[in-house]
Amino acid sequence: MILVKIGGSVFSDKAGEPENFDTETVRRIAGEIAEFYPNEEFIVVHGGGGSFGHYHASEHAIRDGLPGEWESDRRKKIGFSLTHQSMLRANARFIEVFLSQNLPAFSVSTSSIFLTERGGEIVYADIEVIERLLELDFIPPILFGDVSVDVAQGVDILSGDQIMAYLTKMLKPKKAIFLMDVDGIYDGKPGEGTLIPELAREEVPGLLERLHCTAAGTDVTGGICNKLRKAYEMAHYSEVWFVNGKVPPGRLSGAIRGGDGFGTRLR
Amino acid sequence: MILVKIGGSVFSDKAGEPENFDTETVRRIAGEIAEFYPNEEFIVVHGGGGSFGHYHASEHAIRDGLPGEWESDRRKKIGFSLTHQSMLRANARFIEVFLSQNLPAFSVSTSSIFLTERGGEIVYADIEVIERLLELDFIPPILFGDVSVDVAQGVDILSGDQIMAYLTKMLKPKKAIFLMDVDGIYDGKPGEGTLIPELAREEVPGLLERLHCTAAGTDVTGGICNKLRKAYEMAHYSEVWFVNGKVPPGRLSGAIRGGDGFGTRLR
Repeated sequence: MILVKIGGSVFSDKAGEPENFDTETVRRIAGEIAEFYPNEEFIVVHGGGGSFGHYHASEHAIRDGLPGEWESDRRKKIGFSLTHQSMLRANARFIEVFLSQNLPAFSVSTSSIFLTERGGEIVYADIEVIERLLELDFIPPILFGDVSVDVAQGVDILSGDQIMAYLTKMLKPKKAIFLMDVDGIYDGKPGEGTLIPELAREEVPGLLERLHCTAAGTDVTGGICNKLRKAYEMAHYSEVWFVNGKVPPGRLSGAIRGGDGFGTRLR
Repeated sequence: MILVKIGGSVFSDKAGEPENFDTETVRRIAGEIAEFYPNEEFIVVHGGGGSFGHYHASEHAIRDGLPGEWESDRRKKIGFSLTHQSMLRANARFIEVFLSQNLPAFSVSTSSIFLTERGGEIVYADIEVIERLLELDFIPPILFGDVSVDVAQGVDILSGDQIMAYLTKMLKPKKAIFLMDVDGIYDGKPGEGTLIPELAREEVPGLLERLHCTAAGTDVTGGICNKLRKAYEMAHYSEVWFVNGKVPPGRLSGAIRGGDGFGTRLR
């Protein structure tokens, strides 16, 4: 089994129109997956996308939880629901593209099966339906970064990266691949520092320090620092790849095959 | 807690355009619920709607399960996913109307939390998220009739009526209300026989016989016979009402209040 996360910046332009979706890029990604399916099992997770859920999540300050006063709570709950609906619209675009490539993709709604606590960490999950879908060769049961009911603060955001980390721990795929809008992990600023082609698990803490990943990143879901921290956990159970999802074609295929991949491989 | 099921024929015209949605009727229903919220807790379940999921479900013969041959299976899986996406579009319309009435509705995806067996009966369910949403006064965590992963035949349909029966058993609401496009249960053909205002649980088996409910109905989810059979189970745990959801206004409010309701009350 291979997990693939399609980052928000890969399929949507944060600075563009509301809910813009890069159909061409997603069609290419689906096409690369189709080359390997059904010999490989896949689960695809996609991010919030700057112009979809992220936008609503920021506007309604979902990450701050419920304020605890009736009218403000009600307004935030409505924002919570609007954020979810926006994510469902992003998800629907993915499903549409995957189905058009003859891939029997099926949507599983993140907020219906996960609960979070303490900054969007998963504290409860029911993946029974996901496992059944995989048994039936549904591919890929597409999940998405979403709002979440939070055990402590009522509402929060569950990022696609957290979902990747959780599923890696539970399902032990042979590979987890993050598609991003840069070529991989850089020792320095993305696109400026040196691209790291190979990274051993033991090297991650030092790298996090060099990247000044002390607090959460500026991204609503933590950005590259959070991704690296998650990858550090995930590398216990699976090889982790970071590759560019924007440049056509073959970076994803390379990571799936493994030998000739271009990006960052974390063992 | 009150469960309300909005039948497909209440919000959509089976004979009309694809995915037609009666916004005005749903707005009125949401308005009646808003009169009682937050003093009452609600869960709203809606049906497939003749012009939404039902259409795809019939076209792809989802109820027959997977045929067991690779290419036909793949085609049916794609139909299964298309059916779900159509139901999500119906659901999105409900959410939109409820939010516009200032009701913090939230969508829970049926197929993400239920598994079926033997003709769409629920054999597995995880309602943890639903219970948390209710605790937070999210109202109503709208669920919908949907496709389902079936333990025996791979795929099937889980009707809104089955969901009502299951939730009634688990959550023991004080009332479960079915909104339909007729005035209630008739002793004979709907609209022709006599409307039954009060029905005792013991009278249901005799009525089922008089209505010739021996086999499943013609409706993709069993129609009135199935509804009555489910109501018979539900009456163990809750009062059950059948009222007309099409006629403005007050039938739903009447059933919620109970004393002056117009429809069929099953004790």
